[in-house]
Amino acid sequence: MEALVLERKLELSLRDFPIEREERLGPRDVRIKLHTVGICGSDVHYYTHGAIGQFVVDAPMILGHEASGTVTEVGAGVTALAVGDRVCMEPGIPDPSSRASRMGMYNIDPAVRFWATPPVHGILRPSCVHPADYTYRLPDNVSFAEAAMVEPLAVGVHAATKARVRPGDVALVQGAGPIGLVTALAALAAGCARVFLTDVDDTKLEIGAGLSRAIAPLNAGADTTAEILRRTEGWGVDCVFECSGHPRAAGQVFDALCPGGVVVFVGIPVEPFHYDLGKAMVREARVEQIFRYAHVFPRCVGLLASGAIDVKPLITRSFAFRDSVRAFEIAATAPKGQVKMQIELPQ
Amino acid sequence: MEALVLERKLELSLRDFPIEREERLGPRDVRIKLHTVGICGSDVHYYTHGAIGQFVVDAPMILGHEASGTVTEVGAGVTALAVGDRVCMEPGIPDPSSRASRMGMYNIDPAVRFWATPPVHGILRPSCVHPADYTYRLPDNVSFAEAAMVEPLAVGVHAATKARVRPGDVALVQGAGPIGLVTALAALAAGCARVFLTDVDDTKLEIGAGLSRAIAPLNAGADTTAEILRRTEGWGVDCVFECSGHPRAAGQVFDALCPGGVVVFVGIPVEPFHYDLGKAMVREARVEQIFRYAHVFPRCVGLLASGAIDVKPLITRSFAFRDSVRAFEIAATAPKGQVKMQIELPQ
Amino acid sequence: MEALVLERKLELSLRDFPIEREERLGPRDVRIKLHTVGICGSDVHYYTHGAIGQFVVDAPMILGHEASGTVTEVGAGVTALAVGDRVCMEPGIPDPSSRASRMGMYNIDPAVRFWATPPVHGILRPSCVHPADYTYRLPDNVSFAEAAMVEPLAVGVHAATKARVRPGDVALVQGAGPIGLVTALAALAAGCARVFLTDVDDTKLEIGAGLSRAIAPLNAGADTTAEILRRTEGWGVDCVFECSGHPRAAGQVFDALCPGGVVVFVGIPVEPFHYDLGKAMVREARVEQIFRYAHVFPRCVGLLASGAIDVKPLITRSFAFRDSVRAFEIAATAPKGQVKMQIELPQ
Amino acid sequence: MEALVLERKLELSLRDFPIEREERLGPRDVRIKLHTVGICGSDVHYYTHGAIGQFVVDAPMILGHEASGTVTEVGAGVTALAVGDRVCMEPGIPDPSSRASRMGMYNIDPAVRFWATPPVHGILRPSCVHPADYTYRLPDNVSFAEAAMVEPLAVGVHAATKARVRPGDVALVQGAGPIGLVTALAALAAGCARVFLTDVDDTKLEIGAGLSRAIAPLNAGADTTAEILRRTEGWGVDCVFECSGHPRAAGQVFDALCPGGVVVFVGIPVEPFHYDLGKAMVREARVEQIFRYAHVFPRCVGLLASGAIDVKPLITRSFAFRDSVRAFEIAATAPKGQVKMQIELPQ
Repeated sequence: MEALVLERKLELSLRDFPIEREERLGPRDVRIKLHTVGICGSDVHYYTHGAIGQFVVDAPMILGHEASGTVTEVGAGVTALAVGDRVCMEPGIPDPSSRASRMGMYNIDPAVRFWATPPVHGILRPSCVHPADYTYRLPDNVSFAEAAMVEPLAVGVHAATKARVRPGDVALVQGAGPIGLVTALAALAAGCARVFLTDVDDTKLEIGAGLSRAIAPLNAGADTTAEILRRTEGWGVDCVFECSGHPRAAGQVFDALCPGGVVVFVGIPVEPFHYDLGKAMVREARVEQIFRYAHVFPRCVGLLASGAIDVKPLITRSFAFRDSVRAFEIAATAPKGQVKMQIELPQ
Repeated sequence: MEALVLERKLELSLRDFPIEREERLGPRDVRIKLHTVGICGSDVHYYTHGAIGQFVVDAPMILGHEASGTVTEVGAGVTALAVGDRVCMEPGIPDPSSRASRMGMYNIDPAVRFWATPPVHGILRPSCVHPADYTYRLPDNVSFAEAAMVEPLAVGVHAATKARVRPGDVALVQGAGPIGLVTALAALAAGCARVFLTDVDDTKLEIGAGLSRAIAPLNAGADTTAEILRRTEGWGVDCVFECSGHPRAAGQVFDALCPGGVVVFVGIPVEPFHYDLGKAMVREARVEQIFRYAHVFPRCVGLLASGAIDVKPLITRSFAFRDSVRAFEIAATAPKGQVKMQIELPQ
Repeated sequence: MEALVLERKLELSLRDFPIEREERLGPRDVRIKLHTVGICGSDVHYYTHGAIGQFVVDAPMILGHEASGTVTEVGAGVTALAVGDRVCMEPGIPDPSSRASRMGMYNIDPAVRFWATPPVHGILRPSCVHPADYTYRLPDNVSFAEAAMVEPLAVGVHAATKARVRPGDVALVQGAGPIGLVTALAALAAGCARVFLTDVDDTKLEIGAGLSRAIAPLNAGADTTAEILRRTEGWGVDCVFECSGHPRAAGQVFDALCPGGVVVFVGIPVEPFHYDLGKAMVREARVEQIFRYAHVFPRCVGLLASGAIDVKPLITRSFAFRDSVRAFEIAATAPKGQVKMQIELPQ
Repeated sequence: MEALVLERKLELSLRDFPIEREERLGPRDVRIKLHTVGICGSDVHYYTHGAIGQFVVDAPMILGHEASGTVTEVGAGVTALAVGDRVCMEPGIPDPSSRASRMGMYNIDPAVRFWATPPVHGILRPSCVHPADYTYRLPDNVSFAEAAMVEPLAVGVHAATKARVRPGDVALVQGAGPIGLVTALAALAAGCARVFLTDVDDTKLEIGAGLSRAIAPLNAGADTTAEILRRTEGWGVDCVFECSGHPRAAGQVFDALCPGGVVVFVGIPVEPFHYDLGKAMVREARVEQIFRYAHVFPRCVGLLASGAIDVKPLITRSFAFRDSVRAFEIAATAPKGQVKMQIELPQ
């Protein structure tokens, strides 16, 4: 089938790729015609660098893992889905019998196979086979484009779940990239009354501020800690979500945190950062780290359907599948004002 | 000062009542000119029955405990509030040195003194003295009327906090009276994607349904369990908030609950009800009970200010202070379509 | 193979029973030669009544579900166990792909197949096939007899885990039968500094008191609430474990509970009981219910191995397999002073 | 009164010190005749360095904060204690009306006044006045020497409480100094089935190993991670307690941690250390930090009384009050084989 293939670093082609035979339909699987696929920073990073950490693209690999589509065939044992169902899909498939999976933490099962992570192919292609257990039906009022946003949104919702946000909390989200923005939305949906959002890029902050009047943008060039303390009567914020991945920001997570508050590390600084244990101790901070998400896809669909979260303002540009290569070339330039670019497959 | 005094069961008078000398301003106190006071079901119950359980009105008592106002004087040790601040007040004052208070559970300190609970006077009067620690400043965009709703709202927010709602949860709120409605709003603000709301009174359900498209009204006359299971693909709801106080409803809290779900008892059935332990066990249900609220007033103010919760549709009628007696006479008839009636003090 | 078969109510035979063909070894299974099997109250109840609730013995069924043994064969995909390993086994096998199982709550998966629960056979027979994932290796210092106690112990450890016992808690365990006793031991191992143990039977209390100097027996005929409050300086206990199954005891779970305390329902009263919501509310009690156990078998093995829990005093009598019928006849008389009777298979 | 006074760095004198007038008995206070005072590493550090971080001894200060004694006078409002009661005392006194205190986190109230922390005097002196709320009665079977161990023990118990140890957990305690040892004991009392204990000092490890057969000593010079993984079937430990304060150890806290495990930072590395976020993320580690303790003194007394924790092996040497200066001179040499040295006041 025709697919967007990363041949090697900086070389993409839209070409026929023989993957059909790998795609046999098991009794608990469904076959899905893809509709919309979002371009993630990790897809772009594989394109520009040929690798992410230990994961190296040493053979042609199909990109894409943020996806929605329509069920076209169901396995013999599938009861919860039917042909014609509009769906979105979780890109990681764990071993259900692993120790971590049996404990309910399937996302940290080391055996997870994740789309567009070498050697597993992604889904920038017309169709795929997927376990029904990780495929989620969409209600009528959630579009394919919104559904393809569930994957990044799930990161934010998982972070807010781990934080155990209580209604009325005040949060700080560090970093106004796509993940920072969905985390800010998730924090509000999870009960936060206010979210401070920091970044060095005012364009990004402006987009964030436009999402909700409860989001207060602060340029990280200034002394945001002093400003946050001033606006919280000296107490600080209940939750800090570090989504910037910048060592300086990561080193400041405790500065504006209230006594007994929680920090969630969402982003991954490439360089080491200073973990200020003294500041963490005098606050008895709780620090959570997340790895992707577990059990939150259907929750995200519910929050989109109810209107509790609106991701439409984050979808800033859409491309036809035949323009996929150009879409990645543009994405690689990190264009100002773009949050999420998506690709639509022919229907 | 002039106050609304419950002389005895069914006898109210608006008359001068000598309380000034009790109202000396301590170093950590503030004096407040009252602005708006809501009429609570418990106020009405004291009026119509002269008692609630063990609490008997055996001497004239001022009614009212849902209040907002303006600070007119501050004690020598008060730093967080200033004259002119618009505020709302927590009606219960605990002993800060009690064992429960020191553990952070001041609401279940048996020594709590609570407004309009014999022998403690309420605040349907021009002014009162209150500890600054239990007085909360209002931002400009929260009106006095909304602020006087913080007290009942706090019950709902405390219930949602105890439930530990996770983003995307589905809830059932049993009972669409004032407390059921604020609990539904609190559950949504706390992260619920959907709330089923049940009651036998369609007028109340209609009001509830009007609050949010995420609230689904169900008349409790029909088989709501079957309907909820149908709409949740057989899984059930994550949280049940029992706010009806009806033995039949209280006896059904586990019926539509999902495995591992939580029940919060908010209302108090006057008669015994059947606790279906077998159903609770096969779901490993967690059951929480709440008693008023603790630490949630400032959270409620924040949620009103951000727009996460809008209580304005619940404020259905307002009376001048001089019409207080008539307001209670009307409230005692439980008029259709009324949710919260309030009284405004002269300014 | 020869097995202890409940032919029908009150009729047991030790006879050849054709079950081999059901016992094909799958790739993730192990074959186990049984060594010791404990007699549980539920086994006896099936014998004396022919049914437990909705579960009716309408065809001959092998009894027994508390077991230890030795691995004699391993499936092709089994890596964690080897022939010769001494093991104990979890009697319930869930569907690993069910929604509850994937969330980590496999015990409340409705599809669980549980030994000696109609129509599933138990293991009072020479050998069985079992999933390796629910079979746990024993260290050398845990005997087969102790290992056959892991199943009932798991109920107590699961209860203590759900209670979230904190070090230094004080607990009340209601009921000094086998489950009450293992729950008392589990509560102590989980961090309780003291356990009050109540029952109407002084013989049972004496056994309980002999298990640890931290267990204080109280005859439930007297006013145990007053006594517990006296011994806790009026504060009450942090945790109540209701293991008696008596409606009167179940109706008193909140009486001696401290503010903010937790109640765990372990036993199941056959008749309705009074759930005193008013008392639960003024304490903001948390109430947990358990259904068997999940993820605790290896924890129990660890606690036996370390000496944190000693179940040997609870094993009060042992029978040879050929005397199984007599063992059940004796067990059915609820003999004084017996806690756990076990049956040893020929090796 | 005669007191052990740190005049300045490296200069101690046992001399008359006029503190009586500061010691007026308030209505909620008790007066205590001191019996036993332990020597803490922080006392020794003030002696040898004249300061700890920002806390500088710039005026003569009485040392000592681990204490037990006998009540000799009670304030008018004290009901829970009586003259003659044997007690131990919590050395930090918070402001009960601070925001942190009201939330139950009095230990992280910045206004806490803590014994032997400049400018607050310690209690190496014949008597002191203390709030009854932070003074705890001892049962007969807890000696004064054991009671003076409650303060350091409280650190370990608070750490185990924050970890939310579940029965059967396996823990790693890094560092076998006094705090590491009490943390190991607390972890076991809190439900751990096994504790790995690491240190570079074999003498300390030997003492640790002697405390319980459930404590497994490992010299940190070797590859302890590999060894722990081997002994936990590759899964790792549920809880890591970092008590060494060594940057290298602090940088390894995630290495042997299981998926979903928890790390508690107890010790404070003086130098920065590497926080390995990548390892923390793939495990979704929870990281807790503690600051002293809150609400655990009475729990510690209960655990000593029940025998769940035995601190007697940690009390390795005792001095008469008149030999206090020599005791500190010896303590300053960090003598091999000494865990806790104590000073007995004349009775």
